[in-house]
Amino acid sequence: MSNTFGKLFRLTSFGESHGVAVGGVIDGCPAGISVDTEFIQNELNRRRPGQSVITTSRKESDKVEFLSGVFQGKTTGQPIGFLVRNEQQRSADYEHLKEVYRPSHADFTYQMKYGIRDYRGGGRSSARETIARVVAGAFAKLVLKQMGVKIVAYTSQIGDVRLSEKQAFAEHDIESNMVRCPDASVAEKMIRLIEQVRSEGDSIGGIVSCVIRNVPMGIGEPVFDKLSARLAYAMLSINAAKGFDYGIGFSGVANKGSEQNDAFVINEDDCNITTLTNNSGGIQGGLSNGADIRFRVLFKPTATISKKQSTVTITGENVELEARGRHDPCVVPRAVPIVEAMAAMTVLDLILIAQKDSLNER
Amino acid sequence: MSNTFGKLFRLTSFGESHGVAVGGVIDGCPAGISVDTEFIQNELNRRRPGQSVITTSRKESDKVEFLSGVFQGKTTGQPIGFLVRNEQQRSADYEHLKEVYRPSHADFTYQMKYGIRDYRGGGRSSARETIARVVAGAFAKLVLKQMGVKIVAYTSQIGDVRLSEKQAFAEHDIESNMVRCPDASVAEKMIRLIEQVRSEGDSIGGIVSCVIRNVPMGIGEPVFDKLSARLAYAMLSINAAKGFDYGIGFSGVANKGSEQNDAFVINEDDCNITTLTNNSGGIQGGLSNGADIRFRVLFKPTATISKKQSTVTITGENVELEARGRHDPCVVPRAVPIVEAMAAMTVLDLILIAQKDSLNER
Amino acid sequence: MSNTFGKLFRLTSFGESHGVAVGGVIDGCPAGISVDTEFIQNELNRRRPGQSVITTSRKESDKVEFLSGVFQGKTTGQPIGFLVRNEQQRSADYEHLKEVYRPSHADFTYQMKYGIRDYRGGGRSSARETIARVVAGAFAKLVLKQMGVKIVAYTSQIGDVRLSEKQAFAEHDIESNMVRCPDASVAEKMIRLIEQVRSEGDSIGGIVSCVIRNVPMGIGEPVFDKLSARLAYAMLSINAAKGFDYGIGFSGVANKGSEQNDAFVINEDDCNITTLTNNSGGIQGGLSNGADIRFRVLFKPTATISKKQSTVTITGENVELEARGRHDPCVVPRAVPIVEAMAAMTVLDLILIAQKDSLNER
Amino acid sequence: MSNTFGKLFRLTSFGESHGVAVGGVIDGCPAGISVDTEFIQNELNRRRPGQSVITTSRKESDKVEFLSGVFQGKTTGQPIGFLVRNEQQRSADYEHLKEVYRPSHADFTYQMKYGIRDYRGGGRSSARETIARVVAGAFAKLVLKQMGVKIVAYTSQIGDVRLSEKQAFAEHDIESNMVRCPDASVAEKMIRLIEQVRSEGDSIGGIVSCVIRNVPMGIGEPVFDKLSARLAYAMLSINAAKGFDYGIGFSGVANKGSEQNDAFVINEDDCNITTLTNNSGGIQGGLSNGADIRFRVLFKPTATISKKQSTVTITGENVELEARGRHDPCVVPRAVPIVEAMAAMTVLDLILIAQKDSLNER
Repeated sequence: MSNTFGKLFRLTSFGESHGVAVGGVIDGCPAGISVDTEFIQNELNRRRPGQSVITTSRKESDKVEFLSGVFQGKTTGQPIGFLVRNEQQRSADYEHLKEVYRPSHADFTYQMKYGIRDYRGGGRSSARETIARVVAGAFAKLVLKQMGVKIVAYTSQIGDVRLSEKQAFAEHDIESNMVRCPDASVAEKMIRLIEQVRSEGDSIGGIVSCVIRNVPMGIGEPVFDKLSARLAYAMLSINAAKGFDYGIGFSGVANKGSEQNDAFVINEDDCNITTLTNNSGGIQGGLSNGADIRFRVLFKPTATISKKQSTVTITGENVELEARGRHDPCVVPRAVPIVEAMAAMTVLDLILIAQKDSLNER
Repeated sequence: MSNTFGKLFRLTSFGESHGVAVGGVIDGCPAGISVDTEFIQNELNRRRPGQSVITTSRKESDKVEFLSGVFQGKTTGQPIGFLVRNEQQRSADYEHLKEVYRPSHADFTYQMKYGIRDYRGGGRSSARETIARVVAGAFAKLVLKQMGVKIVAYTSQIGDVRLSEKQAFAEHDIESNMVRCPDASVAEKMIRLIEQVRSEGDSIGGIVSCVIRNVPMGIGEPVFDKLSARLAYAMLSINAAKGFDYGIGFSGVANKGSEQNDAFVINEDDCNITTLTNNSGGIQGGLSNGADIRFRVLFKPTATISKKQSTVTITGENVELEARGRHDPCVVPRAVPIVEAMAAMTVLDLILIAQKDSLNER
Repeated sequence: MSNTFGKLFRLTSFGESHGVAVGGVIDGCPAGISVDTEFIQNELNRRRPGQSVITTSRKESDKVEFLSGVFQGKTTGQPIGFLVRNEQQRSADYEHLKEVYRPSHADFTYQMKYGIRDYRGGGRSSARETIARVVAGAFAKLVLKQMGVKIVAYTSQIGDVRLSEKQAFAEHDIESNMVRCPDASVAEKMIRLIEQVRSEGDSIGGIVSCVIRNVPMGIGEPVFDKLSARLAYAMLSINAAKGFDYGIGFSGVANKGSEQNDAFVINEDDCNITTLTNNSGGIQGGLSNGADIRFRVLFKPTATISKKQSTVTITGENVELEARGRHDPCVVPRAVPIVEAMAAMTVLDLILIAQKDSLNER
Repeated sequence: MSNTFGKLFRLTSFGESHGVAVGGVIDGCPAGISVDTEFIQNELNRRRPGQSVITTSRKESDKVEFLSGVFQGKTTGQPIGFLVRNEQQRSADYEHLKEVYRPSHADFTYQMKYGIRDYRGGGRSSARETIARVVAGAFAKLVLKQMGVKIVAYTSQIGDVRLSEKQAFAEHDIESNMVRCPDASVAEKMIRLIEQVRSEGDSIGGIVSCVIRNVPMGIGEPVFDKLSARLAYAMLSINAAKGFDYGIGFSGVANKGSEQNDAFVINEDDCNITTLTNNSGGIQGGLSNGADIRFRVLFKPTATISKKQSTVTITGENVELEARGRHDPCVVPRAVPIVEAMAAMTVLDLILIAQKDSLNER
């Protein structure tokens, strides 16, 4: 249940790590959008395993096949079925996991809930599921692009190595290094940290920051579907996500109201109303105010590590576990396109819903 | 739109700060539950303005009237309509706000979205709306209580005054002081800080921590309605909420996997599987694992302050604003019962949904 | 559960026949609509009991009170809470029903489902619940009116007395008689039939026909939310409804395709595409085609009759039942405004959803 | 939008008549169900084109491929992705339809709604979409079977040839003839009628009747998700469906209450409460009462006929149209398994929702 995300722009996803395929159905994509397959595949490539030395060595080409909803190169408004076949299903790598619950994984909870689980590579709980999110997010981005909305995420922290919030940077530098941090020297430190924890058979977490520009004002629906609430929901639904804040967030906890409030001012160029600061992260009263939407997502260290760990078997015996298989020492760099995808779907969904407001009598 | 929360246990809320009444409809409450009206009113009293010297001086009795769904003292499974009439509608206090957008409030975004707004006391965007949440949350708590599920929230940080995570405390001490912090000496410091910012005409934010005990295993629905995602959504829908994390959260960002993973062990007493640590906050793979659910919610400083602020009018002129009206210098103490209410509704909703799993063939 | 109707324009209803009040919350009504309270009350009066000699003698003024969502005479886009207090709660009339299941009523099924029921006047299963539908439908009509959409329902059959499908009539004649049939002589026969069955302590059913004009083309959502499917759902959710068809419907069952297909033609006046006939009832492929939407709803004879009937008690004994209380010998005339209300909400909801299509790239 | 059906047991479908594939995702299927692939394929075969001389001559093997959600022969509770590749895409047959709107088809309304359409064989509006419904319905049937719930549909009318309601018949005779009418002599007349209209290049409609046995009491959710409302919605969402009734339905329109009410009686065998008659069709107050659920679905004559018809082109010129391609002269026999599938999904969904009632305190 609940493998569907969104209300008017919807992704329904399916697929296990070592099953036949992962894929999904995108429902509610506006009609007439040119389907830039190269762009979509490129988004998938940004998420793909094996793309650099700091990611898992599992090799998958992750080629997407479209099954419906596209006609003569354009969307038709009908559901877009798609799939990516799993290639490197080295399931034998996981046969030894049949009988054991890996610490901080979903093995135990899935077994308790369903009484059965596909134990190969985490089955449905594998991050391989996010392929569907990236494909659907790519469609959302194609629609948003036409409205001028742009979404950029980047790695702002790995372990204790962090990018200063204040620091200016060029967005085109994000993809220039394998950790997806726009500052070359910070990126360098992050990569060294990841390599070090890997050499120890260990893992590390971090933070992805995201900016969304040019979102129309008034996006979000009071009182429960606040833009902030919908973003938090979207982000915490990503594997390994453990926290979320927007605007100045947790780092402003000691601020006073007089410091954190964003004063309104008249923009002298276009006479529009804007704010002097953006501690609100572009969201006030749960609705977009026209400023950049800014939020952060915390990811925990990868649960799979090569170091020996204590755990129990499904029959209730204490054992020592040493992970084989292939895994990322840090999920953060590959999480960057996933955060963007979830943000794109959330914002597009709320923009579509807000079209109803065009019926307001003014 | 989107004034309905939940899927099987649902609250639909209505009402403005200075309208006739605030209230709601609870749909999907199980039948046959004894309606402890004293408990429900007490929950409302914990949220009520004017309950202590550190909250707003607006005085409201906030007496709830039930309109349906209860027969001979018990729920019937039918929708429970309820309302709380607004008494102290000193709307004249707000007449001067008709023409101005208060900084970091919803005035501007509501006007942009709807082209009209009830400017009296924030109208629909007022935290007075949370009355409906507290009433519905009280019903959810009554149902959860029968299952042994218990929810406790408390103030863990105000400004830079924080309760140590490690510190043991007695839950019954939470309500013993007006800031709702279980440690008397920390509470004392928090209260002093709030009084100080108030004397400056300013405001301050903080953090509410929450623990949910005895949640059955396997609650939450992969892959989008993870328990963590649904809690994040619920919490970020509360007025002034700006962040969320669960388990070790942001404070564990520098941990390695080997430090953060929760080793499974056999509980020698009952032979059940449990974990040695609870860095996961009771949630693994998005599902409850039987351990305590632990999460935190960040609240920003109240946007309404008495200090003079720069802003603009609805016709686009720069003005100085000095708040009159009555307001809280810090929303955190009154947010405690609201966090509990949202947690109660979220968990009960997911428990009701998980009843379908009882049809699993084992 | 499921006391909410609609997706973007939503009614959540509450209330029992003999409880404190019936009412609801309308969520998603566009902002800026002038609230014509006289019109709304008049819609309620068309549904009200005791309005003519062929309806129940229960007297209720059914005055609606608005609690929120309206400011300075206009909708604000926020939820509209409303209630109608129950006045004539002669619950003693129903005390004898505490122990007995009335034939073809909901007493038995509610008891089986919930283990408890408010037995006074049918409780939640009473048609008194439809008050909320009529109020919400009146708001939907106010919005639709501005778009030029018009909804008219009328009684087309009572027992075996039927209005010929072919017969032309003037819509303003519908409300000129108490059975709401636009043909005076047919209406006369219908009224005589109703009076006769009442004198026998019996009841009778019939059919309400409905026409919706000026619905924009392309309303409805493939493949499950076809306009026809949504209308069928809405109509069958009304108490006592037992059937639905649209366009030529059941009466065309013996037609061949060549007879039933609606040929497209160019309207010479405006060069628009239209159809020569309208056997499709304005719906093709589940979407509106611009022609009049036409459908019918079948209502069964009122289950409550004065004639003696065999039934059983809740403890499982055979008894004879003679209804006291007050009841309609035929629900059809009072169902006319309810059918209109459900049609109005359905069409407005789908029009709001179709606003998303304005983002289609053409 | 709205290619998802159901709330807890959900089908999301995709695919066009002449695209790559049709398929879907089933979400919420209980875990641990043995997947009887032969049964599922057989259900598809009952729907398949070319199965007899009275259906279209299009030949498709309609082999279903499962992509996820099944592990070691059992469902895992995770989404079940599946697809059926289109084989006989003789799209050239449809090239001449690019420029023309076929009467009583969805060509015109899809073009108006989306500004683009896949004109090959009706694209998304083709009944080929129902493949996904039959697959998901087969899963629902497998689950229902374990609860003892059984669903049987059959052809009860073709044109003016009808099976008497009163007539007893053996269910195993339904599949013994190609029109799926359980009475051999009536079936014979129906087949002759279909062959005759086909020889005329014409088409004919009819009625499918359906019985659901052993549905637990109290299934359905007041007040909008009545079992009757949900069934009506499900049935009217099927291509070519134009009407629905349940129980005695339209044929009882002239009945009085005393004739139509179902008297409760004590079943002497098991002391359970049952009804003497079943004019209610197993549904009272919108909830199942334990008796057989009985309803009927009206289907119009196939819109595609070989006879010459007047229509217009997309550029607004009057033309004559003669269908080529392959089509059914009557959709009713192939609609039988589709009606069953939609009924199975609807009932299972409502049974899963009703699991929440197990939390009622009695």
